[in-house]
Amino acid sequence: MASGSSGASGSEQAVQVRARVIIQQCLSAKVMVQPRTDTQEEQHVEIGRGVMVYICFMKGATEDMVEKMVKTVLTARLSKTETGKLVSVLDLPGDVLVVPQSTLGGNLKGKRMQYHRKVNRENGLNLYTKFVQLCRLYMTQSVKCKEQHKVVEAGTYGNKHETLVFSTLTTGPYTHAIEF
Amino acid sequence: MASGSSGASGSEQAVQVRARVIIQQCLSAKVMVQPRTDTQEEQHVEIGRGVMVYICFMKGATEDMVEKMVKTVLTARLSKTETGKLVSVLDLPGDVLVVPQSTLGGNLKGKRMQYHRKVNRENGLNLYTKFVQLCRLYMTQSVKCKEQHKVVEAGTYGNKHETLVFSTLTTGPYTHAIEF
Repeated sequence: MASGSSGASGSEQAVQVRARVIIQQCLSAKVMVQPRTDTQEEQHVEIGRGVMVYICFMKGATEDMVEKMVKTVLTARLSKTETGKLVSVLDLPGDVLVVPQSTLGGNLKGKRMQYHRKVNRENGLNLYTKFVQLCRLYMTQSVKCKEQHKVVEAGTYGNKHETLVFSTLTTGPYTHAIEF
Repeated sequence: MASGSSGASGSEQAVQVRARVIIQQCLSAKVMVQPRTDTQEEQHVEIGRGVMVYICFMKGATEDMVEKMVKTVLTARLSKTETGKLVSVLDLPGDVLVVPQSTLGGNLKGKRMQYHRKVNRENGLNLYTKFVQLCRLYMTQSVKCKEQHKVVEAGTYGNKHETLVFSTLTTGPYTHAIEF
């Protein structure tokens, strides 16, 4: 994680972070996946109540860690039911919107963010694609999600335009950060 | 930061994180600060283009680190101008919406978030209040911000209802994480 502390250089002994996710509880969320062209309206993907998952892979990230990441994100009890119980998004059940967010891998150096630990584009796309596929797989395996037609939507990797997000967030604990 | 990696326990030699901020670029953002009552409509604070700053103080956070945090948040070049130049929110110039977000201090243990490193309420309120005050001070000292009537707004510390956020995020690099 980016650090504003000059003392943070002493943390090199720490376990290397290879991926970072920010999970936000939402009532609805919408991301542009294709900007408007002369012949086409702009396109969005949209979810109802559930979670937005901002995700960033860093150098050293491998395919074999993706399954654990997906399980963690989908089964961690971060969503609050109407009775105040904390449950996973699969048990809520809720929708999932995955948004690639390479800026989360930045490291503040002076007044500028550096991205030395950025994963290369091909590897990043592979990991992101696998993450989204596995989210969809686990959701279709959930009886609750299937019965209530819950969906996994995803922004387009490397598409700057998909960074236009409209979101409405819910009450309750709602922004969590997890590293892998 | 919460970790989904079982190997992360080896990171205890790392510098202790005492505060965490997530900075999101926005075109507009709105936070409820007071829910509706029988006699009063619900109340919000709102900003235009600028940044939302989710902030969480942890055990070990002290007043003397707040000034550096504020300077970092306000002067880091994370906002993109129309010509594509990266500038600080003071130079944009843009508004700032500070939102307390204690869930960012959570640590994932199994499927549950634990908050052992949570700052106590009194200390957290002091640090948060000072953070907001200093943001306002630095903004009033910026000629650009003053001329263009930029504002610092803030959610209510410890108020669960202020967690209802409506936000519209902008294009460009927009979610950054910084630790102190």
